[in-house]
Amino acid sequence: MASSPHSILLQNPNRFFLKTSSPPIFPTNTHLNTLKLPTKPMSIRCAAPTQTQDQRPLIQTQSQDRVFNFAAGPATLPENVLLKAQSELYNWRGSGMSVMEMSHRGKEFLSIIQKAESDLRTLLNIPSEYAILFLQGGATTQFAAIPLNLVKPDDPVDYLVTGSWGDKAFKEAKKFSKAKVIWSGKSDNYTRIPSFEGLEQSPDAKYLHICANETIHGVEFKNYPTSKNGILIADMSSNFCSKPVDVSKFGIIYAGAQKNVGPSGVTIVIIRKDLIGNAQEITPIMLDYKIHADNNSLYNTPPCYCIYMCGLVFEDLLAQGGLEEVEKKNKKKAELLYSAIDLSNGFYRCPVEKSVRSLMNVPFTLEKPELEADFVKEAAKEKMIQLKGHRSVGGMRASIYNAMPLAGVEKLVAFMKDFQARHA
Amino acid sequence: MASSPHSILLQNPNRFFLKTSSPPIFPTNTHLNTLKLPTKPMSIRCAAPTQTQDQRPLIQTQSQDRVFNFAAGPATLPENVLLKAQSELYNWRGSGMSVMEMSHRGKEFLSIIQKAESDLRTLLNIPSEYAILFLQGGATTQFAAIPLNLVKPDDPVDYLVTGSWGDKAFKEAKKFSKAKVIWSGKSDNYTRIPSFEGLEQSPDAKYLHICANETIHGVEFKNYPTSKNGILIADMSSNFCSKPVDVSKFGIIYAGAQKNVGPSGVTIVIIRKDLIGNAQEITPIMLDYKIHADNNSLYNTPPCYCIYMCGLVFEDLLAQGGLEEVEKKNKKKAELLYSAIDLSNGFYRCPVEKSVRSLMNVPFTLEKPELEADFVKEAAKEKMIQLKGHRSVGGMRASIYNAMPLAGVEKLVAFMKDFQARHA
Repeated sequence: MASSPHSILLQNPNRFFLKTSSPPIFPTNTHLNTLKLPTKPMSIRCAAPTQTQDQRPLIQTQSQDRVFNFAAGPATLPENVLLKAQSELYNWRGSGMSVMEMSHRGKEFLSIIQKAESDLRTLLNIPSEYAILFLQGGATTQFAAIPLNLVKPDDPVDYLVTGSWGDKAFKEAKKFSKAKVIWSGKSDNYTRIPSFEGLEQSPDAKYLHICANETIHGVEFKNYPTSKNGILIADMSSNFCSKPVDVSKFGIIYAGAQKNVGPSGVTIVIIRKDLIGNAQEITPIMLDYKIHADNNSLYNTPPCYCIYMCGLVFEDLLAQGGLEEVEKKNKKKAELLYSAIDLSNGFYRCPVEKSVRSLMNVPFTLEKPELEADFVKEAAKEKMIQLKGHRSVGGMRASIYNAMPLAGVEKLVAFMKDFQARHA
Repeated sequence: MASSPHSILLQNPNRFFLKTSSPPIFPTNTHLNTLKLPTKPMSIRCAAPTQTQDQRPLIQTQSQDRVFNFAAGPATLPENVLLKAQSELYNWRGSGMSVMEMSHRGKEFLSIIQKAESDLRTLLNIPSEYAILFLQGGATTQFAAIPLNLVKPDDPVDYLVTGSWGDKAFKEAKKFSKAKVIWSGKSDNYTRIPSFEGLEQSPDAKYLHICANETIHGVEFKNYPTSKNGILIADMSSNFCSKPVDVSKFGIIYAGAQKNVGPSGVTIVIIRKDLIGNAQEITPIMLDYKIHADNNSLYNTPPCYCIYMCGLVFEDLLAQGGLEEVEKKNKKKAELLYSAIDLSNGFYRCPVEKSVRSLMNVPFTLEKPELEADFVKEAAKEKMIQLKGHRSVGGMRASIYNAMPLAGVEKLVAFMKDFQARHA
């Protein structure tokens, strides 16, 4: 691309907007090919500049097809956010540098992290008695940080285990507390959530921990239990900012960013301020909430670019009308996909109890498991990728986070119908 | 920029190449203004596409001046790396997605992390008996991880403290070991490194820890001590990949990426494999080297985009001819700046003993401290930013990492001379 004359490929303006407005949920006579738009890049040749010493690659927005990415995380991001990030990667808003180069204590980055925090506060309507921390290490680091910060080694704490992630959180908490599983869905292969009335909580448990959405098993809490004597803590990694949440019901909400709100590398912790400041002596300093709260997430160098990306996503979610609007879109996508499964006469099956099916992660199997590899392969040929289920459970999984367009789910559903017609 | 007709601003090809080849070290008759090239953006208007529904912002490489960024980290990155990252941010090499969207277990990202590791191995000539880990949490997390992984709580370990970072590492290690400071430069305001012969190492110390380059104080090891009975461990955060290093002399080398090799958010640990697998029971799983080594840094979701950026930097360093060539450039830049200080007749002063002055971080003060604020302010007006010293020590600091062009140091030196002429 450094050759001369400089060739600039402009995007076909139609390419990203699949014309599937008001489609029937099952477009019975729509052949898949009608979903593939003819996409020719327009090549516009401009005169070469008079000097050509500049060896920098030209920015390319060439017409390479964007896939529909159903990965469970890292996952698809909003297209306009990516394009905005691309446009200002080299020089952020006239600052003369990339966000990646900014001192985390300079005024430019401070404006970025402060706006990200403020926008997140608006999005989730986070009360002022809660701190927002931007940390590193993923939810898995929080599995340790939570007991290390909140309890003594002999304190009882309760875990409600509805999938693999809740189980991992419990196992890590055992190192630093008297953690107990008060209910596990394991015997049902993690397909349901118990009624809260019947839960036998430990009388003195300091907290009750749940995983609000199990990424692997596709089980999502639609409402929340109350901790009998302590606080409620939720790992919301895979449904964070996918719908409104009453933050005041929780002591801590935490989430790895890489599902709904950004790239991997930043973990968001929303914590009631009065819970901060009681870390066990053996707590590594980087796992101590007080250190991070006292320093506004700037005790050491934070993952600056990841925080910046989250900020762009928060802006985008606000521009969409906030989380009520986002939830409507997510419900529509999920209903479309679950209907396709349920109306397939058993060709596709979702094992999860209907009332707790995740709006984010949709696991399903084929009646004929021997077809599953073909399903994944053929879908990939149609530019729908990462549909293979987690290696621990098999089958398929379609993750349809905020940034998955309706058109992506429509295309998947059309493909499923076509695949069924060919293999039933 | 979404308006029509689409306007594409091409870079003035000369703009980034300051014409200062073979300048005198102090260009005595060069007025500063000659360093500011006339920079007019060339605006090329192409015909508008016939349809304009596409609201995506056009990629802009507009002619906004790039600053010389002397920040200590996050810090300036190679311009060609930034431009390459920008060019493929939206769609990585025809994959149909951004690197930020890729599953960390997909073949695309695996190719990225494997190449990054392989290129780093080449760059530093890392023997096969060493593992390379890409982790989160910065060097500060390693301050805890090192004792947690290598020793028992009652084991003696030695710390040689030549600046603030070595001191922080020591304080964190005390939580998890019998850590001892065997030498501290604090009484000399951290301006020197002791002779190794006289060091009184603890007889049974399991390791000797050093900070190879003190970012705040500008003190750099030019050669390395040997641990009497254990291994040598070095925090190389701020001089990692700035020069060749004999990795075989170390048990562990670790470094936050955000100085010489990438954005903040990823920490690289190079560890001799036989040291892995002895973590204390209280080690949080995310701090356990064995977990990460067994899973090739993919136990949980790694900071994918940061790793990708490091990979681009490693490629760039190899393309420059490897670390021997990089060191030559760094020496030239550092000599230029230290000479300017030393030949200023005391107007500028560097407190660090000459034999251990850092090639990366150059702290200096003014004879008249009341001028320091003006110095920083006027330099910023000339687009040389982040020259203020760390808040803990005051004065000035110029960080001149790998990616700081020679032209940046030349411009700073010319400014210093001019400033002195006006204020002496």
